[in-house]
Order: sequence, then structure tokens, then C-alpha cells
Amino acid sequence: MKPFDLVVIGDGPAGIEGALAAATRHWRVALISGLGIGGRAAMSSLLPSKVWLAYAQRMAQLKHMRHFGLTVKPPSLSMDLLRAQITSQKQHAAQRYRQKLEAAGVQIFEGKGFVSSTEMVEVIREGAVAEQLPTRYILLSTGSGPVFFPELKPNKDRIIAPKLSPTLPELPKRMVVAGGGVTGSEYAWAFAALGTEVTILHGTMRMLPRMDPDVAAAFEQWMQSHYGVALHKNNGVVAMQQEDNLVRALTFSGEEYEADYGFIAIGRKADLSFYEPGNLPLQITSEGFLQVNKFCQTSQPNIYGAGDVTGVPMMANRAMMQARVAVAHMAEGDATTVRQKSVAEAVYTDPPVAQVGDMSPDLDASFVLKRYDGLLKAHILGETEGLLKVKVDSKTGLIRGAAAFGAHAVDIISIFQVAIHHNIPWRRLHMVPMPHPSMSELISTVL
Amino acid sequence: MKPFDLVVIGDGPAGIEGALAAATRHWRVALISGLGIGGRAAMSSLLPSKVWLAYAQRMAQLKHMRHFGLTVKPPSLSMDLLRAQITSQKQHAAQRYRQKLEAAGVQIFEGKGFVSSTEMVEVIREGAVAEQLPTRYILLSTGSGPVFFPELKPNKDRIIAPKLSPTLPELPKRMVVAGGGVTGSEYAWAFAALGTEVTILHGTMRMLPRMDPDVAAAFEQWMQSHYGVALHKNNGVVAMQQEDNLVRALTFSGEEYEADYGFIAIGRKADLSFYEPGNLPLQITSEGFLQVNKFCQTSQPNIYGAGDVTGVPMMANRAMMQARVAVAHMAEGDATTVRQKSVAEAVYTDPPVAQVGDMSPDLDASFVLKRYDGLLKAHILGETEGLLKVKVDSKTGLIRGAAAFGAHAVDIISIFQVAIHHNIPWRRLHMVPMPHPSMSELISTVL
Repeated sequence: MKPFDLVVIGDGPAGIEGALAAATRHWRVALISGLGIGGRAAMSSLLPSKVWLAYAQRMAQLKHMRHFGLTVKPPSLSMDLLRAQITSQKQHAAQRYRQKLEAAGVQIFEGKGFVSSTEMVEVIREGAVAEQLPTRYILLSTGSGPVFFPELKPNKDRIIAPKLSPTLPELPKRMVVAGGGVTGSEYAWAFAALGTEVTILHGTMRMLPRMDPDVAAAFEQWMQSHYGVALHKNNGVVAMQQEDNLVRALTFSGEEYEADYGFIAIGRKADLSFYEPGNLPLQITSEGFLQVNKFCQTSQPNIYGAGDVTGVPMMANRAMMQARVAVAHMAEGDATTVRQKSVAEAVYTDPPVAQVGDMSPDLDASFVLKRYDGLLKAHILGETEGLLKVKVDSKTGLIRGAAAFGAHAVDIISIFQVAIHHNIPWRRLHMVPMPHPSMSELISTVL
Repeated sequence: MKPFDLVVIGDGPAGIEGALAAATRHWRVALISGLGIGGRAAMSSLLPSKVWLAYAQRMAQLKHMRHFGLTVKPPSLSMDLLRAQITSQKQHAAQRYRQKLEAAGVQIFEGKGFVSSTEMVEVIREGAVAEQLPTRYILLSTGSGPVFFPELKPNKDRIIAPKLSPTLPELPKRMVVAGGGVTGSEYAWAFAALGTEVTILHGTMRMLPRMDPDVAAAFEQWMQSHYGVALHKNNGVVAMQQEDNLVRALTFSGEEYEADYGFIAIGRKADLSFYEPGNLPLQITSEGFLQVNKFCQTSQPNIYGAGDVTGVPMMANRAMMQARVAVAHMAEGDATTVRQKSVAEAVYTDPPVAQVGDMSPDLDASFVLKRYDGLLKAHILGETEGLLKVKVDSKTGLIRGAAAFGAHAVDIISIFQVAIHHNIPWRRLHMVPMPHPSMSELISTVL
């Protein structure tokens, strides 16, 4: 077989983006697809959660009609409907990705990819002889899978995890969620907005530990006051058990919480099943992720890694950027590097939480705080809750980070992403005349 | 009386922003307020229209529940409710503005401002002796009023204009709208979304004449196909008459259209009632607007102008930027100028239309076209309609303009506004890893 220029293992956001980036350079590209194009992101994590969140958002919108003096009878929502929508979105996304890849000339191989040497990838399929793909470059984008423990794992019944959410037989009346990170928070909000009584058990002193403390605190406060979520922090779950129709969660402080269903979202770990450490030396970080440099190159110069397999933050946009940088490095050398500081992270509740850059307290930086209730748009829409926090370097005036909780926060943080990526000082960003009335005016108001 | 540093005539967005900008410099500032703080924008144009649009958006959201397999009985909507909401929003906005101004130390004078000399402003109130305010600088931000003609003007009954929309006794069954510019389009959509059968009669060959032709065409198409709006272009209204409960609109091509109500939004003109040309020479443009330079200075060096009174585009964000630039020039000299090219314009339908910069065809520029139906987010939300068009300078690679019609278009154009304002080339903006899934990904997708 004529060698490929690039073999991509993994068909999630990083894999697709990397394959497309190489194909637009007229490279001979193979992509090895396991679950269906879109990867775990489309098939079991990112996309299903976004459908749940979309339904939750509809229900929240209906409730919010009150602000306008309107009352609407909420429609009945069945698990069948949600399931059908998830299935249909998954199928259509996989189709669109496949079309894009095929139109770009990428060859798709179904199976499991295994790196047998630095220049050979095997495609393994049950009941078939492994296919050998010789190649110049390899991109590893195998993603991540959920972390479980013997006492804390799904039980094919009432203890579930994100991937299993579409299998629920009914919308739970009571749910206990282990984990208050991004995934736990998103699902907790979605269930609460759909009418479930939610308890969150979280291991550390605050939810969304990667987010700015003030922004995370505003989010926690809102989850409790607007959605009646019972939040127990510093109270991580060590075990979940089911007895008949009751799920019990036991926390490390010895407390017990019960509900109809249990939901586990305590973390994710790299999928490293693409190689045998004995065969092929690849450097792995102390947290068990694939070690890559700023060009996304592994310890083997022609093997690159992109996406969750390389560590946190496990965001699709980071994954896609890494893939673009990796392919640019293979093709053009040291021109572009991954700029971790300009990757936005988001929690897609409604309103959402979003952050970019570094928000840790520093002696040589100051924080600017803006509140939504200063905006005309927020008052018209009755979305006055929320805040924007900006970290500004005292010496250079450059923006070091920004975090927001509130309506359109993801879009607002996108603007900061551009500002940080392109070194626009806060004072100058502040001068851009944002549309009026809009939520982006958080950036441009005088007071 | 001790002279003021600045007297601001006009209490709309430009006036408020200018007064605040001066007060934060510890200036002695007077603001002359006519209608209620917020000006015509808050009292009769911008704010009421945004409340209409907010209700229209709620109704559109309910209809869109279909995408999720949900059916919701639309709530009954009365003019009383809408009216009460507009009144309450107006009152609260005026209160907030007043608090901001007072907190900043701005002195508010109720009345009509009149420039009696370059260093003296009179505050005129019926039945009272005019108060004299001596001042170093004057900011004219008196805004604009609607254009009517003897045969084409509101009749205090069924022929109305934006300002009179809250006085409607009922939601019209059929409405004929004269004018397909921004205001005509916004109201036409709002009425259509609330159930009115709408006919738009527009004078030129396309609606939204300031917007990019492809984007405007997509908007026109959507108004017709999704909202059943009857659109007649090149068919401007020359007269409207009411006979009993029927309104007839006569167009310049001699056609006649009838409806229950008529709505006039054919343009706005500067409010120049703040002076007597005999007393005080001020340069006026051929279109009847106050002439100002890039520092917003009039032909009298200590008199500045900001907002609609200075011409098109009549956008609040432009008005506010002009006011900031004017005050910066009074206080600090030539540092900052108005950058017309980075002021976004928007049509607040749902989805909205937005544009920034220059979109006219040019031999030395190319256009990039992106469609919403390539985005995962658009598919999940069922908002796949729409497009983004970017104009890129062939030589420098800089972005010269961008226009969009589709979900979150205003936020997306805000990003371009920052990019244009800060000279970020398209190729580099394109590399920013936008959150996934989001509508901002129109900017960052590979294909």
C-alpha cells in the first residue's frame, strides 16, 4: 500500500479537524473511526449533553415568560422524545462529518487504530485480519473516557453516567449527582430545569473548580435559589449503591444521600489503548495523559497528539486548535503553537458560564467587575443576573483573563478570547462601541 | 452662576454617555433633559421597539418548540400587557439613568436647551423665566425625529408611527408598513410574529439598504417564507389615508394597498431646534445634519455634536462612541477619533441582522461566505438558517467588513468589530479557537 501522509486515530473533534486540515493541504489522509464519525464527543458525551441542555433551555424559557407577564402551560416531555432527538442529532452529525471528510478526500477506515511502529498503524476489526496503514505522520486523538471506581460506577439500572443518560426509562423525580465540575453542573441544571429534584455532591470547596471563584459562586448561588438544587460541597461521593428503586450515595465524610437515580460525573481519563508501552516508547504525564509539546508533538517526532488524550481542559475547541497546530507543524514547521491562554471554557447552562485565560489572583494584576443589572438589554429581557470579571495586567494593561456568568456569556468571552489572542489591552477593548442594547456592552459601558 | 465645564443638551444615549464621561473627569457638568432621562431613544424609539421585539421573540420561541417535538399553546397577548411593559421599562430605565448621572455628580435641568451664544445655554420651561447656564463646552445631542409628509403622517387613529405603537387599541389583524429600513423591518417582523398579516411597501430595490445585499436578500426571503410578510419593493408609499376602519396606502407607482392599520417608518431627520442660525453660525450638511469633524467638533470649536443629530447610521452605540470621543477631545485633545468603520449596525429581529465596516464590492477585496448549516450548534438548536459574509482586503488580509443574518449575529459581528477596530487580519482571527459548539464557530471552522 502507498504510504499515507497522515493517519489519524480517533474520529472526534480533534481527529476530524486534523484530517480536514491535512486534506486541505492535499495530503493523503486516513482517519480511523471507531464509534461513528464524531467520536465519543458526538456519540456519547458532548452532543447528547447539548440536546439535554437544549430541552432544559426550552423549559427555562417557558418559565421565564413570567417576566413578560405571560403564562404558558409547559408541554409534557417524554424520555422517548429526548431519546429520539439525541439519536437523530447523532446520526445527522455523523453524516455531516462523513460528508465533509469524504468531500475533502479523507479515507475513512472503520475499526480500532493501533500504532504498531512509528510509521505503521493497524486497523483492527473483530473477525477480520488487521489492515496495515503505512504513514509519514500519525495524529493520536483518541479522546477520553469517564473515571469510575469499583464502588462508584454505573450499574446498568438506576446508577448512570453521562453516556447512559438517553437510556433512562423516565425523567427522574429525584437525582443525586456525584461531581460538580462542568459535566456534573450541566446535567444537574438540565435535570433540575426539566423538573427533577437534584442533589449535587461535590468533592472540593467549590463547584466548577477551574472557573473564577466569584463567577463560580454566582453560579452556585443561582443553581440553589432558582432551581432548588441541594448543593453539598467538600462532600465527594465514594460509593453509590442501589437497593430496589432507591439509590444511595455515600460521601467521604460519612454522610448518606438518597434519590431515585444516581449520576456519576467525577472525571475523565485519557484513552491510551492505541499502543503498547513495550512496543513504542511514548512519554505519559503524571496524570496519565499523552505528553505533547507546544506543537502537539509527542516524544516521537512524527507522532502528534490532540484533544482530551493530551489532558485538561477537555474542551472541543482546544482539541480542534491542537489538531490544526499539529498539522501546521507537520507541514510547515514551527510557525504556529498552541496558545492555551486563549482557549475559552464554557458551561452550557442557561445562562452559561464561560472563561478564558488565567483568573488566579496576582499582586501585579487588578480585576474589573461588571454586572448585568447595569445593562438596558438585561432589564428588557429580565436577565439581570450575572457578572463579568476581567483580569488586567497592572504593568502592560493587557487582559490576562476574563470570566462571566450570565446571558450570552459564551459570546462575550469569545470577544475576550480574540482580545487575549491578539494582545489588545483592556483600555482599548473597552473603547469598542458595542451594539446597543446588547449584552456585549458589559465590555464598553463607561460606568 | 459659576460656569459649567460642559453643558449637554439632550438626554439620550449620547447625552448620558457624554455627561458621564465628563463627570468621571471631575468636570462640572449640566445635562438638559426634555422628555425624561433616556431621551427619545428610551421614551419613544429604541426602548419601546425593543419591548415589542422581546414579545415577538417569545412568540417566535414558542413556535420554534416544534423543532424539539414540543407543542405549546401560545398565551394570549393583550395590548394592555405590552403597554404596561413598555411604560414600566421606560420608567425604570429613566430612573437608572438618573441615578447613574446623579451618582456621578451631573446636574440635571428639566426643560429645553437653547444655545444663545457659544458660551451660554438657556434652559427654557413653559411658564418660567429661562435659566442661563454659562459653560466652557457644549455637547449637542438632541437626536432625531421621524420624517413625515402632509399626505403621509400619523392621524391619531389608525395611521401610526413607531412612537405611537403603544397607543394601539388592539393587535392589528392587518398592517401596511411604509418603509423597509431598520425600523420598518423590526416592527414589521414584530407584528408578523405576534400574528398580524403584514405588507411592507419599500421605496428602493432592497430592504435594509445599508446592509450587504446577500445578507439583506436572506433576510427578505426569510421574512416572506417564515412570516408570510408580503413585500413590495421599488414601491414606496406617497400617501396614507383612513376611511372608517380601513387604511389605504398609495405607492408612487400608483398601486393601492389596504389594511386595518398603517405604520410609517420612512426616515428620521436631525432635531436642530437648539439654536437660531441667525444668532449662531453652525455648519449643517446637505442632508440637514449637524456637521462635525472626526473629533465630533462643530464649526464652533467649543461646541460638539454626538448622536443622530450628526447623521447616519443612527445607532445608539455610534452616538455613545461619538460622545466619548467628543469629551476626550475637549479634555485631552487629538488623541481619539471616531472610527466609523468599527461601529456595528443591527436589526434586532430573531434571528437578527448585523453588520460592521464596509461591505461594498471592490476589485481589491474578496468575500468569504460561511453558512450556519455547517455548525453543530445550529443543528442542535434548529437554527440552521443564515449566513456570515466577510470582506477581506486582498493586499493586507485585513477585514474590511462583515455582515451576518442568523442566530447570535449581533454577538458575532461584535467580534468582527473588535477585529476591525484593532486591525486583526482575517487569517489570524480565523485561528482563534471559538467555543464548541457555538455560533461563533462561523469564524473558526476549517471548512
